[in-house]
Amino acid sequence: MSGSSPSVCADAGAHAEPAVIELAHGSGGRLTHALIDEIFRPAFGAAPEDLTHDGATLALEAGSERLAFTTDSYVVRPLFFPGGDIGSLSIHGTVNDLAMCGAEPRYLSVGLVIEEGLRIDVLRSVIASMRAAASASAVRIVTGDTKVVERGKGDGLYVNTTGVGVVRARSPIGPQQVQPGDAVILSGDVGRHGMAILALREGIRFETEIVSDCAPLAAQALGMIDADIEIHCLRDLTRGGLATNLIEIAEIAGATIALDEGAIPISDVVRGACEILGLDPLYVANEGRFAAIVPTEHASAALAHLRRFDSQAAIIGHVDRGAGHARVLLRTLGGTRELDMLNGEQFPRIC
Amino acid sequence: MSGSSPSVCADAGAHAEPAVIELAHGSGGRLTHALIDEIFRPAFGAAPEDLTHDGATLALEAGSERLAFTTDSYVVRPLFFPGGDIGSLSIHGTVNDLAMCGAEPRYLSVGLVIEEGLRIDVLRSVIASMRAAASASAVRIVTGDTKVVERGKGDGLYVNTTGVGVVRARSPIGPQQVQPGDAVILSGDVGRHGMAILALREGIRFETEIVSDCAPLAAQALGMIDADIEIHCLRDLTRGGLATNLIEIAEIAGATIALDEGAIPISDVVRGACEILGLDPLYVANEGRFAAIVPTEHASAALAHLRRFDSQAAIIGHVDRGAGHARVLLRTLGGTRELDMLNGEQFPRIC
Repeated sequence: MSGSSPSVCADAGAHAEPAVIELAHGSGGRLTHALIDEIFRPAFGAAPEDLTHDGATLALEAGSERLAFTTDSYVVRPLFFPGGDIGSLSIHGTVNDLAMCGAEPRYLSVGLVIEEGLRIDVLRSVIASMRAAASASAVRIVTGDTKVVERGKGDGLYVNTTGVGVVRARSPIGPQQVQPGDAVILSGDVGRHGMAILALREGIRFETEIVSDCAPLAAQALGMIDADIEIHCLRDLTRGGLATNLIEIAEIAGATIALDEGAIPISDVVRGACEILGLDPLYVANEGRFAAIVPTEHASAALAHLRRFDSQAAIIGHVDRGAGHARVLLRTLGGTRELDMLNGEQFPRIC
Repeated sequence: MSGSSPSVCADAGAHAEPAVIELAHGSGGRLTHALIDEIFRPAFGAAPEDLTHDGATLALEAGSERLAFTTDSYVVRPLFFPGGDIGSLSIHGTVNDLAMCGAEPRYLSVGLVIEEGLRIDVLRSVIASMRAAASASAVRIVTGDTKVVERGKGDGLYVNTTGVGVVRARSPIGPQQVQPGDAVILSGDVGRHGMAILALREGIRFETEIVSDCAPLAAQALGMIDADIEIHCLRDLTRGGLATNLIEIAEIAGATIALDEGAIPISDVVRGACEILGLDPLYVANEGRFAAIVPTEHASAALAHLRRFDSQAAIIGHVDRGAGHARVLLRTLGGTRELDMLNGEQFPRIC
């Protein structure tokens, strides 16, 4: 599996066995994109952006308000981690996807797939966490569904949440709107969610515990709209981290995004943990961080707004015309390198 | 676990071990209701009907059209069965839940949890089936999400679909609207979906293959609204079958529903299979059948409408005041018996 555009089943011929789903198909990297491009998009006839953006926006009737609609399944392992659990993650994650559409989150559905044998007190605890998270974002959980599968056919609990919001942005927000000259603003330090999960799962202890950044982002994002800050694109930096998400945006926008490595906030403990484990923090999943891409004349207002929520918010780069090259470049002390979308799986079941 | 209102964790004291989720918690019967009543409803603050009806109806802004919103996860085993597969089931099922809210289905999200090792050709086949089913109901799949879990942590493929529709019914539809005197109309014969799955899973062959009734119901249901037929309640007869779903309605309505056993259409092959396996067809899941509860003066128009789709549609009973007893009575040749909601699991993973 090499090159920048692997096929979803490139290995089939070599093995003379049916191609199968690999863990990397769920990583958010190249294989996830291959699935979307080769199987989902041709079948569902979706526009290029519909299935790669955080959600869809819909008009139900001519002249009515536009809706945002987004879904995510959560399979994080273990169910509880420093800074959150599958309950809070599943609410914040879907609220954040709505916010990234410039929409005010309103209603959520919850679908549970429970493995036989899950302790009822564990379920109660997850549900209490969902309640608190929904309340923090003023969204209502209005419908739900529960299925139970036999022991060994699940892993405790899988959660799907799907959200409906009302679009508040006055102009479209999405990778297509990104323009040369735009500033790229990061809302806080990156890498904490993925490293919190990984440290817990691998039993690695650091002097300072790594706590997930799992949090709702609607107030940060919608506050920019309220403050009349023009926004071209918003993206929460979940699976695949900062790098993968910006590469997706660059590819859809057909632009080069140039980042300044020194401007990207990463905590010492995350940086240290990544070094020990041989991981690049720019590819590690976040659950409470986003990138805002805004016209340069709105950059300082946007930064000031985001710093009210997190003092580490920073302008980390800008969009270049890039002679038609869709890519993300990272300027480091030693020079400039291009960030690639990962082909394989950095680590599974982070969200 | 006896009596009509088991606790979600009634066994905890006896075993001195933490109460755990059992397969029956996913059956749609008493234990599912106990989960909803004891854990989900107190946490989410939902109105009594919100979490037991097929979906929620929402008003986004004052004066705007009302939306219907519903979610279901599908864990059917095996993935392919006579008359359908997890792909068609997951589209028809959610389309039908919207239709049961009196809403025109518009948009769906799809969330996949795939087990590592699923064959890509199997996935392609399921997705093609979803496409065909969505097309048949003129709904658009507009957003999606894919997660992959390790071998042994899933069972091939679990699907969540969540749907948004526009409410077309001019007056509320739901169990609360049910009135004494209303007629109960069944849209076709019952028991085929569950028996098709069970026969396949148990390797039982009958002279005539049992084919699932899995099908979209929006045209039947919305056609009644278009024809100005007044509707009090619509309910598709999925998990728990005709009996469990009517008991739910009777309990919310605080009414007695009296059914005439002889009027309920059941095919010979389903009846025979149920006898062999010791099952009651009234509790077997359907995926393309619904009950319409309508004022008696609209019953013949409703029946005529439904017979255009299925000649077996029939008036099977009516709603009595029942002296405040919320229950379902079945008049048989031998007398009258009360139908109970099942405490245990008839068979798991039927949808």
